[in-house]
Amino acid sequence: MKIYGDTKSGNCYKVELVCNLLNIDHEWIDVDILAGGTKSDEFLKKNPNGKIPLLELDSGETLSESNAILNYLASGSDLYPHGGLAQAHVLQWQFFEQYSHEPFIAVARFINKYLGLPAEKADEYAAKQTGGHKALQVMEQQLTRTPFLTGENFTTADISLYAYTHVADEGGFDLEAYPAVRAWLDRVAALPNFRKPQNELERTNMTAYVCRFKNL
Amino acid sequence: MKIYGDTKSGNCYKVELVCNLLNIDHEWIDVDILAGGTKSDEFLKKNPNGKIPLLELDSGETLSESNAILNYLASGSDLYPHGGLAQAHVLQWQFFEQYSHEPFIAVARFINKYLGLPAEKADEYAAKQTGGHKALQVMEQQLTRTPFLTGENFTTADISLYAYTHVADEGGFDLEAYPAVRAWLDRVAALPNFRKPQNELERTNMTAYVCRFKNL
Repeated sequence: MKIYGDTKSGNCYKVELVCNLLNIDHEWIDVDILAGGTKSDEFLKKNPNGKIPLLELDSGETLSESNAILNYLASGSDLYPHGGLAQAHVLQWQFFEQYSHEPFIAVARFINKYLGLPAEKADEYAAKQTGGHKALQVMEQQLTRTPFLTGENFTTADISLYAYTHVADEGGFDLEAYPAVRAWLDRVAALPNFRKPQNELERTNMTAYVCRFKNL
Repeated sequence: MKIYGDTKSGNCYKVELVCNLLNIDHEWIDVDILAGGTKSDEFLKKNPNGKIPLLELDSGETLSESNAILNYLASGSDLYPHGGLAQAHVLQWQFFEQYSHEPFIAVARFINKYLGLPAEKADEYAAKQTGGHKALQVMEQQLTRTPFLTGENFTTADISLYAYTHVADEGGFDLEAYPAVRAWLDRVAALPNFRKPQNELERTNMTAYVCRFKNL
């Protein structure tokens, strides 16, 4: 299978992380968002919504939306419950992530880190802080009660929320007031088979990483 | 089970619709968003994110996020595939709905229909039109090829997208340019067991509806 992604994107990071955790062999194809890679005619044929990550199976079938890809790749593993309320709670947190978390925390990070916080974005950046802190408070309440978002077990819901929460500081969010969230970040990073994806390593300037993706 | 909802909300409409389609017995509890019903201490104990719809099972367990509720209620029926790529494509469209469709089409409708398009919201309203039309174009492309969003079969993905698309005109979206979307709206409304939920009936001023919810 092929995964089209950009290491700058936390949504792509999620997919890298689940592949690492479950040792899923794949070909990673870099698509540069800032250079318009998701808006090319060739890419729009694969995903008319012009977004990454995108999974392309050997059959040619495609799947978009990071959280849908996560659950598909994790199906059959302990990371994605097979059904019932356990699966529904994973989905609950993933929809929360896409509606109430990512549009604030990820967008604030993008404005700050990749656009350099230009003056014309200052108001938008400030507005994102309110929504982002509200999302962090919801997570804090849950993680005060349970070690992972859906309860006792680590699931794809944790991967979905980990992606942008662990770099929330890059969007101006100080996690000092969220001790349960910080403990959870440490808990995730301490999991067996947790290996920091490439972009994380680039971020922390580690250079000893041997890339395991076929085309890199 | 109890469902907390507001008939003004398309996200709640989704849940009403799946209950109608599958004849799911439930108690509907009205929560008035505009009157602050989702921000009361009592409600925030049930859903710390302060949003409806919310499902409360007889066990006291809760489930939030409209699309997670839909899939949970439809589990075991033909409306929600049990796994594999079929389920993943349902999720793909539902995440698309929450990130690329609802924040434009539903929010434009809210500004226009419920806030009365005040002058200070005019710029935001105009900005929502661009994103909304982009989402409609993505749907149009798919629905030109297949009768339902994920292929040959009607699923919860169609319910998720139907909710706000069928009232997109209330947000200023003219569907004239989207013939495949319009044909799909008719196809959904012609399904066996499709019954217009209460808010739809209120919208079209029909009065002969006998409410089937226990508490109304």
